[in-house]
Amino acid sequence: MSDRDVTVCEVGLRDGLQMVNTFFPTDEKLAWIRAEAATGMPQIEVTSFVPPKLVPQFVDAAEVASAALQIPGLSVVGLVPNLKGAQRAVELGVHKLNFVMSVSKTHNLKNVRREREESVADFARIAEMLRELPAERRPILCGGLSTALGCSYEGEIPLDDIRRFAVMLAEAGADELMIADTVGYANPAQVRKAFTAVQADLPNMKLGAHFHDTRGLGLANVTAALEAGVRQFDASLAGLGGCPFAPGATGNIVMEDLCFLLDSMGMRTGVDLERLVEVREIVARNLPDTPMYGGLARAGLPRNYRPLVQRAAA
Amino acid sequence: MSDRDVTVCEVGLRDGLQMVNTFFPTDEKLAWIRAEAATGMPQIEVTSFVPPKLVPQFVDAAEVASAALQIPGLSVVGLVPNLKGAQRAVELGVHKLNFVMSVSKTHNLKNVRREREESVADFARIAEMLRELPAERRPILCGGLSTALGCSYEGEIPLDDIRRFAVMLAEAGADELMIADTVGYANPAQVRKAFTAVQADLPNMKLGAHFHDTRGLGLANVTAALEAGVRQFDASLAGLGGCPFAPGATGNIVMEDLCFLLDSMGMRTGVDLERLVEVREIVARNLPDTPMYGGLARAGLPRNYRPLVQRAAA
Repeated sequence: MSDRDVTVCEVGLRDGLQMVNTFFPTDEKLAWIRAEAATGMPQIEVTSFVPPKLVPQFVDAAEVASAALQIPGLSVVGLVPNLKGAQRAVELGVHKLNFVMSVSKTHNLKNVRREREESVADFARIAEMLRELPAERRPILCGGLSTALGCSYEGEIPLDDIRRFAVMLAEAGADELMIADTVGYANPAQVRKAFTAVQADLPNMKLGAHFHDTRGLGLANVTAALEAGVRQFDASLAGLGGCPFAPGATGNIVMEDLCFLLDSMGMRTGVDLERLVEVREIVARNLPDTPMYGGLARAGLPRNYRPLVQRAAA
Repeated sequence: MSDRDVTVCEVGLRDGLQMVNTFFPTDEKLAWIRAEAATGMPQIEVTSFVPPKLVPQFVDAAEVASAALQIPGLSVVGLVPNLKGAQRAVELGVHKLNFVMSVSKTHNLKNVRREREESVADFARIAEMLRELPAERRPILCGGLSTALGCSYEGEIPLDDIRRFAVMLAEAGADELMIADTVGYANPAQVRKAFTAVQADLPNMKLGAHFHDTRGLGLANVTAALEAGVRQFDASLAGLGGCPFAPGATGNIVMEDLCFLLDSMGMRTGVDLERLVEVREIVARNLPDTPMYGGLARAGLPRNYRPLVQRAAA
């Protein structure tokens, strides 16, 4: 990987669909995953291994993950809330496990009913389970720090808390960390400062960024994170998603616009922008009442614009 | 002004309304201007001095400008397409004249039916007329370079062309320059490069940036321009506007989100964010069928967020 290579991860099937009450049919989830993988999308968080009783949308987690794992070249990611979820994901052969805890004490208590230190202990148990696996079956373990840049309960989150829990997850065995602005509070100055500080504490750690576009600053924050050296970003097709604690909020940053941003800056994602826009049709036909966001889909590519994948193929 | 002071200019009444076929009643234009000025908005481009036959929306240019000039502390800006328009604006006592030419040869020919060099000559005639005025009656003259970062006819615009016409306008007598991404083609890397280059050519020139959010990158481009030292930005309330040559395109960047971006980064605009959001009601009641954009209006301020104007007042 060169400094111009960026890994993007589609999270709409997890972060987007977890907010949707309508069950998105399993076949259609797979149609979405296959179509988006065919655009060159390198990673897709295909499901969540939460107990299906809690989120019925993910009752088909095993089926979706198994089918996604048949797609050549796709890195299949699953959210794991606890050791049991991680075990389910490992049995299926999922490539990467996303564990998420909140840096906000209050949010962690409300969301998973435990102190943050207990969440770190949960994470350590997952890491320990993975260490016992033979190397070829061992997935990548990503430690997610949600509400790291602001919280609907607490407001501002001290930078020292982000740094502290980042170090704790790293010491517990994280291969990667994902720093998330779950409720869209962050600004570019804060982003640059936070990522620079955590990277300085953990110089060998791969850091990813997960932004929501709640107040319109999502791609501005991506720009700041890129400058701080971040080369891994989550986003969702059409900006699908939302947040239960931020009424009227939009979801994740829009994947199509993120890929256009990166492509236009000469950063390689491997994604075919025009094919990516076409994948929206699968979301639209299944969620006709859900708002879909995105500038690229509305306006199209600039005149004479040659996406990087086309230039690479020429 | 410190490095943290940023001047924002509302352009919705000009760049937004020029695309709207419905006549926005003069009284309501004034209600908008007065309400937005009361939020602390330092500059408003209140109208365009184009011939009313060409754009009937601006038939009330003199009335609007005269009334706006009664508002204490507001810098009243008017677009002037030519010497005659500039003379009309000067007679009224408008504080700042925005002259606009295209860096794209094709766009300039289509838009104002002349070569770019002829537009520079037009600009020089305006500058000459202003130099003959007594200092206390002389408005600021801003040279606008539209389609500077991309053109719907030509695609990419060579950086050398931006630099060349920036220098020509400066030599012709511009007090400020406004570099505009008229059709929303720009990316942050390009923005940083272009503004840095022009500022290096013209170290004493005040540069402003005018971005459209057509493909979602508007505030990302603001972030890049801020880093390049730009401290003057255009935007429109609710992202009002559009572009006749980019079907489906949105308008300017959203003023409310721009002010939130700046405020949250600790950059002072003087604008009261909550009052600014309330001004949208005046646009909504007059243009019920026009889409209104903006994350801050949808989601509200973050919890415990204290805008800079409140902190300054405390």
